[in-house]
Amino acid sequence: MIKEDIGKRMYALATELFPLPRSITGEGTRQTLKIIKREVPELQLHEVPSGEKVLDWTIPLEWNIYEAYIISPDGERIVDFENNNLHVVGYSAPIDSVISLDELKKHLHTLPSQPEAIPYVVSYYKKTWGFCITHNQLQTLKNGDYYVKIKSTLETGSLTYGELVLKGKSDEEVFLSTYVCHPSMANNELSGPVVTTELIKFLKSLKDRRYTYRIIFIPETIGSITYLNQHIEHLKKFVIAGFNMTCLGDNRVFSYMPSRRGDTLSDRVARHVLRYLHPEYIAYSFLNRGSDERQYCHPRVDLPFVSIMRSKYNDYPEYHTSLDNLDLISPEGLYGGFNVNKVCLECIENNKTLLNTIIGEPHLSPRGLYPTLGAREKEINVTTMMNLIAYADGKKDLLSIAEEIGKPIWELTSIVNTLLNEKILVEVNTLTKES
Amino acid sequence: MIKEDIGKRMYALATELFPLPRSITGEGTRQTLKIIKREVPELQLHEVPSGEKVLDWTIPLEWNIYEAYIISPDGERIVDFENNNLHVVGYSAPIDSVISLDELKKHLHTLPSQPEAIPYVVSYYKKTWGFCITHNQLQTLKNGDYYVKIKSTLETGSLTYGELVLKGKSDEEVFLSTYVCHPSMANNELSGPVVTTELIKFLKSLKDRRYTYRIIFIPETIGSITYLNQHIEHLKKFVIAGFNMTCLGDNRVFSYMPSRRGDTLSDRVARHVLRYLHPEYIAYSFLNRGSDERQYCHPRVDLPFVSIMRSKYNDYPEYHTSLDNLDLISPEGLYGGFNVNKVCLECIENNKTLLNTIIGEPHLSPRGLYPTLGAREKEINVTTMMNLIAYADGKKDLLSIAEEIGKPIWELTSIVNTLLNEKILVEVNTLTKES
Amino acid sequence: MIKEDIGKRMYALATELFPLPRSITGEGTRQTLKIIKREVPELQLHEVPSGEKVLDWTIPLEWNIYEAYIISPDGERIVDFENNNLHVVGYSAPIDSVISLDELKKHLHTLPSQPEAIPYVVSYYKKTWGFCITHNQLQTLKNGDYYVKIKSTLETGSLTYGELVLKGKSDEEVFLSTYVCHPSMANNELSGPVVTTELIKFLKSLKDRRYTYRIIFIPETIGSITYLNQHIEHLKKFVIAGFNMTCLGDNRVFSYMPSRRGDTLSDRVARHVLRYLHPEYIAYSFLNRGSDERQYCHPRVDLPFVSIMRSKYNDYPEYHTSLDNLDLISPEGLYGGFNVNKVCLECIENNKTLLNTIIGEPHLSPRGLYPTLGAREKEINVTTMMNLIAYADGKKDLLSIAEEIGKPIWELTSIVNTLLNEKILVEVNTLTKES
Repeated sequence: MIKEDIGKRMYALATELFPLPRSITGEGTRQTLKIIKREVPELQLHEVPSGEKVLDWTIPLEWNIYEAYIISPDGERIVDFENNNLHVVGYSAPIDSVISLDELKKHLHTLPSQPEAIPYVVSYYKKTWGFCITHNQLQTLKNGDYYVKIKSTLETGSLTYGELVLKGKSDEEVFLSTYVCHPSMANNELSGPVVTTELIKFLKSLKDRRYTYRIIFIPETIGSITYLNQHIEHLKKFVIAGFNMTCLGDNRVFSYMPSRRGDTLSDRVARHVLRYLHPEYIAYSFLNRGSDERQYCHPRVDLPFVSIMRSKYNDYPEYHTSLDNLDLISPEGLYGGFNVNKVCLECIENNKTLLNTIIGEPHLSPRGLYPTLGAREKEINVTTMMNLIAYADGKKDLLSIAEEIGKPIWELTSIVNTLLNEKILVEVNTLTKES
Repeated sequence: MIKEDIGKRMYALATELFPLPRSITGEGTRQTLKIIKREVPELQLHEVPSGEKVLDWTIPLEWNIYEAYIISPDGERIVDFENNNLHVVGYSAPIDSVISLDELKKHLHTLPSQPEAIPYVVSYYKKTWGFCITHNQLQTLKNGDYYVKIKSTLETGSLTYGELVLKGKSDEEVFLSTYVCHPSMANNELSGPVVTTELIKFLKSLKDRRYTYRIIFIPETIGSITYLNQHIEHLKKFVIAGFNMTCLGDNRVFSYMPSRRGDTLSDRVARHVLRYLHPEYIAYSFLNRGSDERQYCHPRVDLPFVSIMRSKYNDYPEYHTSLDNLDLISPEGLYGGFNVNKVCLECIENNKTLLNTIIGEPHLSPRGLYPTLGAREKEINVTTMMNLIAYADGKKDLLSIAEEIGKPIWELTSIVNTLLNEKILVEVNTLTKES
Repeated sequence: MIKEDIGKRMYALATELFPLPRSITGEGTRQTLKIIKREVPELQLHEVPSGEKVLDWTIPLEWNIYEAYIISPDGERIVDFENNNLHVVGYSAPIDSVISLDELKKHLHTLPSQPEAIPYVVSYYKKTWGFCITHNQLQTLKNGDYYVKIKSTLETGSLTYGELVLKGKSDEEVFLSTYVCHPSMANNELSGPVVTTELIKFLKSLKDRRYTYRIIFIPETIGSITYLNQHIEHLKKFVIAGFNMTCLGDNRVFSYMPSRRGDTLSDRVARHVLRYLHPEYIAYSFLNRGSDERQYCHPRVDLPFVSIMRSKYNDYPEYHTSLDNLDLISPEGLYGGFNVNKVCLECIENNKTLLNTIIGEPHLSPRGLYPTLGAREKEINVTTMMNLIAYADGKKDLLSIAEEIGKPIWELTSIVNTLLNEKILVEVNTLTKES
């Protein structure tokens, strides 16, 4: 499939998912996961009941919303959830009342600095209700009686998440986590699940997968906490690299959120790939974190998790507003986000630990690996081959060697295969378990 | 007590001590220590007899001086110890003689490059006598017979030092060392003992001291060698941080002398405090050392000793001359020197090793620790609190965490207390002994 | 012997060796080694028979050449091996034939970018024949029949190398390797063997050598592989430092090729010496390697080998052409190359591990080591002496101490001897074996 088609396919899926009223629980999220399961049928949907204790947290009541609007003193429906699901504060309790403008204003949220934008506001853990509107609209409201209506339910139900495991030759796992809890916003968050869906298709196409891949679609924070609650011992034992998939759809510069430790395999791969593919990328500090690495990199969890993003959450003007819409992302933007993560996964698949078998340099010419005239100009790939051999000490992985000899790992894989065939190199088994 | 009063109190003590004829032994030093004991009665005075072997050295004879002057051929008393005790070379033997100008000149010391200054000269270990005068005065001396008189004694006696131990909850010790062996000079040295005296008052005011504090007032070099000779095994076992208190009184830029190893707790605290309080500070190399860190950081002693100073010995024009007088220091200068060392001690007291108790981030809102609307703007102290938790891995001390999250330790202590109360953090006991 | 005479002696030897037709085997190399043995009679010549397996390689047939020329259609001898032994491709098979210009051109090598230079070309492992000429000459060749004649033999014989071991007090070895396989070229390679010959004379002049010195003169690559094949276990056990002696004769800037690991004793010494003697030196990466460090630093060999050179092979315009002739090198250039390596060997001889015996600073004045008046100006060598003592912790070697205190090791050796005599320092025995 060509690059353009992959980008368009992701954009189409984002367009389909955009209007669904996602939250950390409820039908919007459940419906989102069902559409993704249509794309990747191996996806398993799980439900965790309200009230269940998960680590330090508790699964909240399930929130569903059916309609929400405000009618002005003139009888006009001036705000309607039908038009934009950001209009309602997430987890709003039901309301059906006539109130004064002053009273209404206590429940209205705007962004004075971005008067055209509807802000995204939630109140998961304190029961309240509210509407979000543009600051421009706020200025137009006249005194009088307003009818406010939110038809929502906050009831015992469940938190829904999706999980998919693609077995490889090894039990060691690469873990991808993305989130499905934000309503109509495109870069943060829909780019995450649509790029992840496309990566699953890519991973399924790999014959002879070396590693096992674990992919989850969860609500942010409470979802990763729920998943850790269920799986922490397994994850600590098997995960060798993890990627938090978010903010992958706009056309702006790439960025990188390190793990807390900063030197895990995920960090090394991410920096290696970004250095060659997007050398202008922004390297954030872990102090700028704000997504599920907060849980996965917690000291008592300590998984090797990074995020490779385009415009990072919190750091672009449209973030958490109605301006983060389908115009902000594009097929090209999504393809870029997909590709950089795909290359990372390929690097991990190819990241063998190599040992040369011969003492001293191998004699290349009898093996047909060397130009026969010892002239001044040597072919560049002979240099790269000899460098690769010179660093293959049985301890360094291919990624370390690539960094030492200043070449991207993907320029080395065919040489590695040649040298493995010639038995000049052997792979040292560093996998902890084989299935 | 307010800042200005503390500064004035230290300046008054320096003024009182200034005229006493201190040396490495003798009544000037003994008298100095008695005045300090008046301020901090817990101070114990110790005498170590002349001739006692201390490490590679020997306690010298005790030197006392009663009068010293030169009478010119015109019968004028042109140089008099009464006017300035720098006029006599330290440890001068007695002399009572009439000599020619040529002969006299062999015993006169001046500073041609600073013709208005009387230099400070000593000869502890080679018996001689001499006078120090300004270079300007030297130019005025005419030929003729000069009467020189030094009434001094060099006799079996003792070396005197003061010692004070303030017990804390732990037997682990913080060690402050300052010296009392220079005659009338203010920045080097009187600022050292007067700031140290004030720090003792501060330490006594601390209820619930965590560490034990050991403070000594000694002659430089021979005194620290004597103290090490008596206490080295104890010090090596219990001292976790040490500070050499010197050059703390002028108004110039702060400076820092590292320990030999450069990465001890003392070094880490000193750099942390200076970075925030006086970021323009000068970081010297251990190669520029010149005070008692020469002994305390000796490879076979290896205590964690640093100096935080204002103008460092050897590196300001008035050093070791009569220009290093009470005009060079000030109440404000002394207060600055006091405060930076006081903040270091507070940092050490608060430098706990912390472990978070919860897997994944704690749920803050049920504990009343989190703003309930998940809006874009978070309060800065929530970020700091979450950063603190994210690095509290049971291995890093608070100082390391403060460095990692880019906050001074004193902005973290109230958050630490909140989190300890909430049992989100626990203190890991890293003390070697509890008393 | 004065500097100028040493330089002239090396240049004279290079001049004598220049015309000999060296290759990786044959009489040219054998004759070269015999002349070197005349200079250093301890040199042992060894022969390794064709066909013997050495690591991954096989000793090739011995190549000898007697004459080679081309006669033009006009009957003129336009190319003659007698004039320059670079005219024949190394290891050319015999030929005696009349061929067309088109056919001839398939066997002619030139350098279009350097039309005045004869290139240096070899074909050790693919049987062929060829001539090398200037590109200018190539342009003048007219159509017609050319008579080409190479009288050479490729027969079972042997590979020749020279070896010399100078025993020292310790069985630990310093290893010098240089190569003798290039025909008439001066910087690469004759500077290597002539400087090495001079270093042997220097080493023989050392009474009381601390280390054993192993010096070999070998053909590059196949020779070091042959030597490793015979001696690898011994070398891995005893070699503490190694130097590849090459490119030491021109007057250009010095350069340094690190070992693969980059932090061996050889690396530390080389950088220390170059920093003081030739601070403008070029530090290459191991990725720029191209001589016998390819074998000695191979991961399964892993000897501490570096090269200190003047213009490095591959990186100067005359490299591997007829322009690398006796005009490119000079007595001064050779002396510089000799001296920097000699100073490295002296540093290694003096690189003791020192421990101070006294707790606290030693009392210098009773030992006559200190100026007696404690004035502001101290003599600089007292500072250096005290610094040396302050870092002599029984773990750091003198080289580390020299780096820490910012002095070249040769400024410390007389102070070290004084302090050893005074028993203020003792040498810690870090030698693995004493003979």
